[in-house]
Amino acid sequence: MLINKKKNFWDILQTLINFWNKKGVIPLQSIDTPVGAGTFHPETFFKSIGPNPYSNIYVQPCRRPSDGRYGINPNRLQYYYQLQLVIKPAPINIQEMYLNSLKKINISLEMNDIRFIEDNWENPTLGASGVGWEVWINGMEITQFTYFQNVGGTECNPVTVEITYGLERICMHIQNKKSIYDCIWMNNKNYTITYRDLFYKNEKEQSQYNFIYSDTKLLINLFQLHKKECKRLLTLKNPLIFPAYEHFLYANHNFNLIEAKKIFSVTERQKYILQLRMLSKLAATIYLNKYS
Amino acid sequence: MLINKKKNFWDILQTLINFWNKKGVIPLQSIDTPVGAGTFHPETFFKSIGPNPYSNIYVQPCRRPSDGRYGINPNRLQYYYQLQLVIKPAPINIQEMYLNSLKKINISLEMNDIRFIEDNWENPTLGASGVGWEVWINGMEITQFTYFQNVGGTECNPVTVEITYGLERICMHIQNKKSIYDCIWMNNKNYTITYRDLFYKNEKEQSQYNFIYSDTKLLINLFQLHKKECKRLLTLKNPLIFPAYEHFLYANHNFNLIEAKKIFSVTERQKYILQLRMLSKLAATIYLNKYS
Repeated sequence: MLINKKKNFWDILQTLINFWNKKGVIPLQSIDTPVGAGTFHPETFFKSIGPNPYSNIYVQPCRRPSDGRYGINPNRLQYYYQLQLVIKPAPINIQEMYLNSLKKINISLEMNDIRFIEDNWENPTLGASGVGWEVWINGMEITQFTYFQNVGGTECNPVTVEITYGLERICMHIQNKKSIYDCIWMNNKNYTITYRDLFYKNEKEQSQYNFIYSDTKLLINLFQLHKKECKRLLTLKNPLIFPAYEHFLYANHNFNLIEAKKIFSVTERQKYILQLRMLSKLAATIYLNKYS
Repeated sequence: MLINKKKNFWDILQTLINFWNKKGVIPLQSIDTPVGAGTFHPETFFKSIGPNPYSNIYVQPCRRPSDGRYGINPNRLQYYYQLQLVIKPAPINIQEMYLNSLKKINISLEMNDIRFIEDNWENPTLGASGVGWEVWINGMEITQFTYFQNVGGTECNPVTVEITYGLERICMHIQNKKSIYDCIWMNNKNYTITYRDLFYKNEKEQSQYNFIYSDTKLLINLFQLHKKECKRLLTLKNPLIFPAYEHFLYANHNFNLIEAKKIFSVTERQKYILQLRMLSKLAATIYLNKYS
């Protein structure tokens, strides 16, 4: 009874989404622009601020160009999936609810060493910060747990709680695999599809692109163009927040790509971050005025 | 017994994905770049060609800037969701399987007038074409059914079948709504979330952007930059197909945004399409050589 049943990647994410959906959380689709974390999804970014109750859950593909390892490292990827959940206001028993969600995917709370390690969180370009924990299972981080204090430079009141499940890590644990690439994405009586089958080629090529072959001048140019367009759309007489925010996301992604090339000095990097933060803050402020 | 039970949007898409997953189809996440149709997903584009058996299903957010109606039109959107399915080789009884999938979401085949209307399909920038049908329910198109003959300018052998469910239309039918915006996305005993709650603001702002406020010069510049970068990455000694294809997708999206501004002459439009088709064809050819 205490032994984990082996669930495939797809089962795990479906089970977690259904668990939270039954508790009233709104399931959404991921945003179709590259982002570095689920927090960047416009539904999460804009609705975390302001007074209205809100919740959502979705799987978000995340891109962290600097984390690429050419498909060689067994537990580091530049493209991976987060299961992202927010609830506002944060339920009092959220920690217990989270632990129950782990039970649902057959993670035994008795047989494993599950720890909450204090870890305050900051997302500099989103002007967001919070207090919370990393959740570790037998020494491996599987979840980030955060109470948002600020988003878009605005104080969060009431407080939103964000839970970010690292699906690949959880899958490695449940399936007892040493490499992400050996995880079973989906299987039936006829065949088995692994994470390697689906993502290895992309991981290798994108790592080559991110570290070696991307055109740094082009990335800087794209950063500038999107940054400028974001600002223009936010400063129209009738600001267009959603189209502007997309240009912010593109600028942010190009910043991450530039960073992977390791050409930034500390000062220069800080200058880029401040420009991005100024835009996300402006978007949040205008959103609050226009829609809350 | 013949009366439709009311399912919400989320139930419908979950039920359809599970239906096909049980038949061995691989469920995937959508691609995180803007696309005009599910067919553009790299997993579908690249794996539809070549000899190997393959299948997938996923929900893809689709952007068709010219289709925006400022959130006023009850059944036309510039951002909507396709449920996209491909199977290679096409099963002999695929039409029957599709009809069974409709039964699963409580669409009665006896009580409704379901027709298959011949409709050959072409996607000019993907160099893709096929034969197939539109599926109509009581006079409203709900699905596109296609046997791919060419993808990326390459003949498909064996043939891949693609089924594209229009989730919003299906939801309108099942919930008996006259407007997409009234469709119930998710509900429980405490509250109901409609399509309007989630998407109306974005639809209005993006329509304003697409038709009026986008910067045409910037769009043309972005088209050129991404087109050039796609070609450069495809013509490296060791071509980077996946990063290149993403730049193709950005170029294609910017082309769609330019088109919404109605500034193209017929010849100019054709010139853009030919440039995009040349790139998708080159990517497909290199993919076949490198990976098949």
